[in-house]
Amino acid sequence: MADGDQIGKIAAATKAVDENIKSGQIVGIGSGSTIVFAVKRIAERNKTENLNLVCIPTSFQARQLIQDNDLTLGSLETNPEIDVAIDGADEVDKDINLIKGGGGCLMQEKIIASCAKELFVIADTRKDSTTLGTTWTKGVPIEVLPMAYRPVQLKIEQIFGGHAKLRMASNKAGPVVTDNGNFLIDWIFEGVQDWKQVDRQLKDIPGVIETGLFLNMTKAAYFGSPEGKVVVRTK
Amino acid sequence: MADGDQIGKIAAATKAVDENIKSGQIVGIGSGSTIVFAVKRIAERNKTENLNLVCIPTSFQARQLIQDNDLTLGSLETNPEIDVAIDGADEVDKDINLIKGGGGCLMQEKIIASCAKELFVIADTRKDSTTLGTTWTKGVPIEVLPMAYRPVQLKIEQIFGGHAKLRMASNKAGPVVTDNGNFLIDWIFEGVQDWKQVDRQLKDIPGVIETGLFLNMTKAAYFGSPEGKVVVRTK
Repeated sequence: MADGDQIGKIAAATKAVDENIKSGQIVGIGSGSTIVFAVKRIAERNKTENLNLVCIPTSFQARQLIQDNDLTLGSLETNPEIDVAIDGADEVDKDINLIKGGGGCLMQEKIIASCAKELFVIADTRKDSTTLGTTWTKGVPIEVLPMAYRPVQLKIEQIFGGHAKLRMASNKAGPVVTDNGNFLIDWIFEGVQDWKQVDRQLKDIPGVIETGLFLNMTKAAYFGSPEGKVVVRTK
Repeated sequence: MADGDQIGKIAAATKAVDENIKSGQIVGIGSGSTIVFAVKRIAERNKTENLNLVCIPTSFQARQLIQDNDLTLGSLETNPEIDVAIDGADEVDKDINLIKGGGGCLMQEKIIASCAKELFVIADTRKDSTTLGTTWTKGVPIEVLPMAYRPVQLKIEQIFGGHAKLRMASNKAGPVVTDNGNFLIDWIFEGVQDWKQVDRQLKDIPGVIETGLFLNMTKAAYFGSPEGKVVVRTK
């Protein structure tokens, strides 16, 4: 039997897919535990409706989900413009700005989101927050070039304060390596007011490849509760 | 016998090394054809002066140069702060802003430069320019994640105009792959006024990893003429 979080994820994923995925679209497929239910729902509908979608993955995980569910796999090379992207998030604030990258796929996720006309976020209600850093306390994930991780750590702490931790792996020795061959720094922050400015300053540090801050990119967020109710937030 | 360009490169490299490299320093070693002469000069001085340097490379090429010249190889992990970096450039404008990346090593070069207290640029006089794009006509090199090259090309041309070309390799099939495993786009631009703004907008495109624009990073540029004379430009 599904637990409460899972019920919420399934409810959000189902509603977001049913309201936004239409026949013939190019669809960006996000990464993470909630996306599994979105791809399953797309596959279900595809069997009865023959949706004729092309699905563009944001990670190895997404690529496998697309293939395991008998959907058509595409790439940004053949389809640089995406109609709709669906993705999860680690935290969603009142203005539907996001922290993403808990699963380490932030860079490809942001590329896909930036190529999509509309980004829909699906999550259980635990991800719903007023200001970033309230419910997600593991910090902002930041992808860095491996050779630069040490000076980037030092610079982040010097410029912004807080604590910039190199993310360590569980099933290999040493740090996590992303799908792009890079490292991740999780920056535990304090008292940030202007996220746009912070994101810009982070990107200005040579060695920083991408941040997990998704600002002004989301069209709507679908939050599913443990009872299976879904609340939709738009700007 | 050395040709004129080579005489200029040797003269600039020698003067820059002699004026700026001191015993006990952490030294960033750039990449490209001019840097070869700087490392040779450092090695020459090291034999007689025992300089006790730690050299941090900006590329595989630089790493090999350091090792071939019996200098001590270091990394940003052990030495995140660099005293002096020496590097070449493809073009240097009147305010000693640079276009770099003709050799494809822009990202590690920029990281090393950003960790250095002082960056000295060495070049033959052909690289001396008033405004960027005058003497260097191959465009601004931009490092991109391979999966994103196509939408990044389209976005650059849409936002700024000009022509954004994927750099192709000569000794392998398909595109050049950088030391970091990425692709390069060479953006042939027109009529850029505000480089700082353009650099920021380029970096705001998800999939862009780094640009070859080095703005306000250089302490002094050394230009060597075919007659072996050196002109130094500071801001």
